[in-house]
Amino acid sequence: VLETPLGPGPEFDRIRSISQALGEIAVGLGGDCALVEMGGRTLALSIDASIEGVHFRRAWLTPAEIGWRAAAAALSDLAAIGAEPCGVLAALTVPRTEPPEVSVELMRGVGAVCRSVGARVLGGDLNAADALAVTLTVLGWVDRPIGRRGARPGDAIWVTGALGGARAALAAWHRALEPDPAARAAFARPEPRVAAGRWLAALGAGAMIDLSDGLAGDAGHLAAAGEVDLELDLDRLPLGPGVEAAAAREGEDPRLFAAAGGEDYELLATLPAECDPARPPASLGPAPLALTRIGTVGSGEGTVRLLRAGRPVRLQGFDHFA
Amino acid sequence: VLETPLGPGPEFDRIRSISQALGEIAVGLGGDCALVEMGGRTLALSIDASIEGVHFRRAWLTPAEIGWRAAAAALSDLAAIGAEPCGVLAALTVPRTEPPEVSVELMRGVGAVCRSVGARVLGGDLNAADALAVTLTVLGWVDRPIGRRGARPGDAIWVTGALGGARAALAAWHRALEPDPAARAAFARPEPRVAAGRWLAALGAGAMIDLSDGLAGDAGHLAAAGEVDLELDLDRLPLGPGVEAAAAREGEDPRLFAAAGGEDYELLATLPAECDPARPPASLGPAPLALTRIGTVGSGEGTVRLLRAGRPVRLQGFDHFA
Repeated sequence: VLETPLGPGPEFDRIRSISQALGEIAVGLGGDCALVEMGGRTLALSIDASIEGVHFRRAWLTPAEIGWRAAAAALSDLAAIGAEPCGVLAALTVPRTEPPEVSVELMRGVGAVCRSVGARVLGGDLNAADALAVTLTVLGWVDRPIGRRGARPGDAIWVTGALGGARAALAAWHRALEPDPAARAAFARPEPRVAAGRWLAALGAGAMIDLSDGLAGDAGHLAAAGEVDLELDLDRLPLGPGVEAAAAREGEDPRLFAAAGGEDYELLATLPAECDPARPPASLGPAPLALTRIGTVGSGEGTVRLLRAGRPVRLQGFDHFA
Repeated sequence: VLETPLGPGPEFDRIRSISQALGEIAVGLGGDCALVEMGGRTLALSIDASIEGVHFRRAWLTPAEIGWRAAAAALSDLAAIGAEPCGVLAALTVPRTEPPEVSVELMRGVGAVCRSVGARVLGGDLNAADALAVTLTVLGWVDRPIGRRGARPGDAIWVTGALGGARAALAAWHRALEPDPAARAAFARPEPRVAAGRWLAALGAGAMIDLSDGLAGDAGHLAAAGEVDLELDLDRLPLGPGVEAAAAREGEDPRLFAAAGGEDYELLATLPAECDPARPPASLGPAPLALTRIGTVGSGEGTVRLLRAGRPVRLQGFDHFA
């Protein structure tokens, strides 16, 4: 049985079955990070793969951007528990036909985002294979890991930054258009929200998750893990770059477009109602990033309710096996 | 510049270029494991990918064997520094067309080898992709990590177990034959030499490496890292199951066949000449595995000399980009 329950979907059914098959030798599955205790400190670890044809296409990104994006996505799991990254291990697969520079550029991108958060490259593995892929294990130190289980009825739900930029870029590429440059940057060079995650943890966040599969799916994990209901008012959703134009092109409501998009790697956090991010303790200093309140936790059994203009809407998170 | 120099080859040229491009944020590259100091103890980590069409074919192995083999190969890196495994993180990619049981069986195999060495499954990542792949990060505790750099002139060179079994299975499959059952087991269910690695470390091993790319290539890494020459007498090579028959079928000398094979995941270790594995200190107990002396370290600049019936032979290690 999973230590941290997950929301619905065939991908997560597989993870539930794996956890059950492994029994007692599986520890801590279902959360954003594994935790290893030693000598009074806690090391958080997470593994995350970025695969050509699944997470990106070769034509969209430079090799350095592929590396950056893969590492940023992995580091985002550390951000989501409030950890401070210290290192990464990178397994690359690169087609034999690619020049040697491609491997170097991939790792230059990994290295650049590591540098931006104070992490180092500690090791790796290099294989020739048909598809280009970057699988990273990220390591970070954490004092008080914020899990997915701590949402409590009455808590406010906050989101960092803005949503939908990555999907705006994807939508353009899928129509063979050049994306809005800022939307392209949101997809190609997302910034792991490490500082915001640590700030929210220090402010008193009860639960956090990074938004990689879309708001509905990821909020569903917080609801399932906390055994609570989440109500999210999509009217309040801060829109990422290029979203209005991309949504108009697709004939979609921009806030539904943004909520359905994944891979923005913003954080979704619950805070006790009395915690006001606009008035943090002096010791903490101001939030390192815009924070927007988009909903409330209610008592319940793991449901996410999305509202748009006061009316319920249905969205699904991304699921690899749906 | 790599902290632990590697032997020759285009795969290792790429790793040298990556290390140079990363500069000071790359730490400890070139060895079997990354090391993180934690509360007075040292945690060793390594990442290793096993990919369909590269490391195995789907028709050769059951999903549970694919998982076992991938995890055993990764754990072998911990064995090679004398670490005690404690946990693994597993990133799976599985084609969407596979039934959910395949993901579960892969992880059952990972779990089984973890159980055999006292490690637990701490986390993972599941993606749908074209090829089946299992990428593992393994974690272990280590008191005195045995690196690749410690070979000294005059040391004896020892190998655990027997070599060539995995290649005997591969050679049969490539001829559309059913492999010898013991050779098949050597390929499908290699045992990570964790106990032997810790025993050799306690006995005083100077340098160790696990044999994954063939004796010539892996010995080349020890030679390069230690800035010494290695002379290996292939006449002494212990032959794995099915090697004689497979080599005869290929028209090859069985000891050259075994030396050229990779993926046996045995350990190659250097021991000071006065260290006799047949007479270990009473506190240590007998070797957990057969050990064979196959050569001697000499002064030099990183060359490996292979002898067969007293005459020099040339072999190359496996290289993904050769």
